[in-house]
Amino acid sequence: ARPAIMASLWARHGLSALLAANAVLLLSLLLKPQVLKLEWSRRKRLSLITPKMLHFSQGTLQARCRLLLQDAGLESGAAAIVADALVSAQRDGKVAHGLGRLPAILTSIRSGTVSGSARPSLTSVAPGILRSDAQGGLAMSAFAAGLPVLASTAQELGLCMLAVVGCRGIVGSLWAPLEQLAAQNGLIGIACCNSPPFLTTTGGKSRVFGTNPLAFAWPRTDGRPPVVIDMATSRISRGDMELAARLGEALPPGAALDVDGMPTVDAAAGLKGTQLPFGGHKGAALALAVELLGSALLGTDLAIDAESSAAGMNRGVFFLAIDPSRLSQTALAQAERLFSAMQRDEGVRLPADSRYRARAAAAEHGVQVDAVLAEECFGADFVRADAGPVVPVGLV
Amino acid sequence: ARPAIMASLWARHGLSALLAANAVLLLSLLLKPQVLKLEWSRRKRLSLITPKMLHFSQGTLQARCRLLLQDAGLESGAAAIVADALVSAQRDGKVAHGLGRLPAILTSIRSGTVSGSARPSLTSVAPGILRSDAQGGLAMSAFAAGLPVLASTAQELGLCMLAVVGCRGIVGSLWAPLEQLAAQNGLIGIACCNSPPFLTTTGGKSRVFGTNPLAFAWPRTDGRPPVVIDMATSRISRGDMELAARLGEALPPGAALDVDGMPTVDAAAGLKGTQLPFGGHKGAALALAVELLGSALLGTDLAIDAESSAAGMNRGVFFLAIDPSRLSQTALAQAERLFSAMQRDEGVRLPADSRYRARAAAAEHGVQVDAVLAEECFGADFVRADAGPVVPVGLV
Repeated sequence: ARPAIMASLWARHGLSALLAANAVLLLSLLLKPQVLKLEWSRRKRLSLITPKMLHFSQGTLQARCRLLLQDAGLESGAAAIVADALVSAQRDGKVAHGLGRLPAILTSIRSGTVSGSARPSLTSVAPGILRSDAQGGLAMSAFAAGLPVLASTAQELGLCMLAVVGCRGIVGSLWAPLEQLAAQNGLIGIACCNSPPFLTTTGGKSRVFGTNPLAFAWPRTDGRPPVVIDMATSRISRGDMELAARLGEALPPGAALDVDGMPTVDAAAGLKGTQLPFGGHKGAALALAVELLGSALLGTDLAIDAESSAAGMNRGVFFLAIDPSRLSQTALAQAERLFSAMQRDEGVRLPADSRYRARAAAAEHGVQVDAVLAEECFGADFVRADAGPVVPVGLV
Repeated sequence: ARPAIMASLWARHGLSALLAANAVLLLSLLLKPQVLKLEWSRRKRLSLITPKMLHFSQGTLQARCRLLLQDAGLESGAAAIVADALVSAQRDGKVAHGLGRLPAILTSIRSGTVSGSARPSLTSVAPGILRSDAQGGLAMSAFAAGLPVLASTAQELGLCMLAVVGCRGIVGSLWAPLEQLAAQNGLIGIACCNSPPFLTTTGGKSRVFGTNPLAFAWPRTDGRPPVVIDMATSRISRGDMELAARLGEALPPGAALDVDGMPTVDAAAGLKGTQLPFGGHKGAALALAVELLGSALLGTDLAIDAESSAAGMNRGVFFLAIDPSRLSQTALAQAERLFSAMQRDEGVRLPADSRYRARAAAAEHGVQVDAVLAEECFGADFVRADAGPVVPVGLV
């Protein structure tokens, strides 16, 4: 879907978009020297080249998403779950898991790559291990089937593992289910999943791992939202590689090898070759552990058995939940003291901060959606009727 | 103990040691161009400046270690466990956890910093969570008390967690207990622990985390030894920082900040300032997760509550064991296919390889010990009587 959106953006706005983007960039540089220190991230860079953002209410987007998913053939329970997941990610500024995924999901349901009628089945394979089988449907329905039982079993035993298996297509953010476990059930959560083969290991040049995400959540006290970590084990995301190739931008060093296994900052060469894990040999070791937990342990596909697309891959997610109240009554209070100590240094933000800031902004201004994407997803009539006032980019 | 050994080395061998070390270095460079690609690791660099290595039988070293520990006041069961741990690490080439630790352990027992008479107590705090309290003794005794029950409970429930708490002084390698769980019980193991505050986080300059290790083990088929990962969450180890400062060598970039929070490659400035996590902001997020699991969850000391030494710190270890046979009968076979695919690239080694190679060399030639260290630990008479033939450095 993303190439189509980009092409559409350029076709419609052409040179004026380019000039506008450059003007925004120049102004930003003049006004804020710290913009030079921009993290190499798609979201921020996209915000510099996106000419128009619209704002919608979360409920409106969810209802519309749900209808489209049902029309494509997804059963109504799953449609509500998937609509909520996509709109929540969009709201939190995590556009890689947001509405941009909707067109591909609709296509995958219509084509039968993803089963629209599948109902996940939940079984207990051991007293402390649950399996939620998506039966060829989307992972998010299998999360919803498994998470409440994962939580209650973890509270009973002190900990529990949930193996989500049999998923097709997009897994979605691991952040959201872990945030739920921590915020609603007071549980520590750890999760990881398998994905198509794009990553090599230290000393290698073949694709042996997915860019598999690893996620972690820790509940907080006094109603604060959980600390949640959710990171790919690759140096940069596949989406960022693809975007850099389209824009002709250089990759950061250490992100990719070409087909001959030589380091490259040429994004096109890196796409043909392999991506590298973050953090050198330590990151590569972590990527191996995540690949083993997210595929071999669950009985889902290894990256080496998958094509370079999620379409036909048997995908799965490893979840672990631990009840922190069993070992120490002061576990959460101790953690709060650590979070405070970290934030005493001016430049430090907790891993969750940017997401919660985006969520707060959305609560005030509505959920921000790229105008071209909104029209692609919902049509021009919907966009004209339901969009809130256009807020200039960068002020939200 | 290490500064004393280094001082002793220089005092005894002086200029001749320097010349010998340089000759060895020069010869290595001439003979093996790949030595230029040396990993920045203390063990390898020490091997270049150490003029004399002796070889002993594992049993002889263990017996001698055990006697010394008992003489210092450690009860006999614990003495056997600790002697085995130190000699096994030495045998496997992991000198940071080897006999070099013995003098400090003896001192800590004699001074009462570590309780020599403590007997660990094992309790079940939830059906799936065990706690092994070292009662102020060394962690290794508490591992030994907890691991068999961790294994049997994991086999019963599918998974189990063991919280080792109340440890003083040196924790020892996390590799060894995880290797045991994987090799003897066929379990996947994950472990991490707390440690003194040397690490800051992304954007910070204060010491907020330990250089806490994270470890992972995966059992293999056909009697192969497990794949085991054991890595500090810091870019380099504290020991490497200290060695670089003594030798006046530069640190690798990204390893440390000075007291003002500015990046530095000056080891002395880095020792006064803070170390950095490996892998940038992703590594920092991982270091946060490890700090939370290894201290707040267990009810042991946060790094921010500890002095810059392990002496008085309440240390603990998080262990998780998962039975891979519960979810998929082919889990281990699938993993073997991944290991094979990885090793098809010529430059790839599995994380465990160097340790198992050192172990195989020790089985043939005996356990290699620095001559100065051997004499410091066991006395000149022992060294003369029990050392095997001196094998030139680099040939083992």
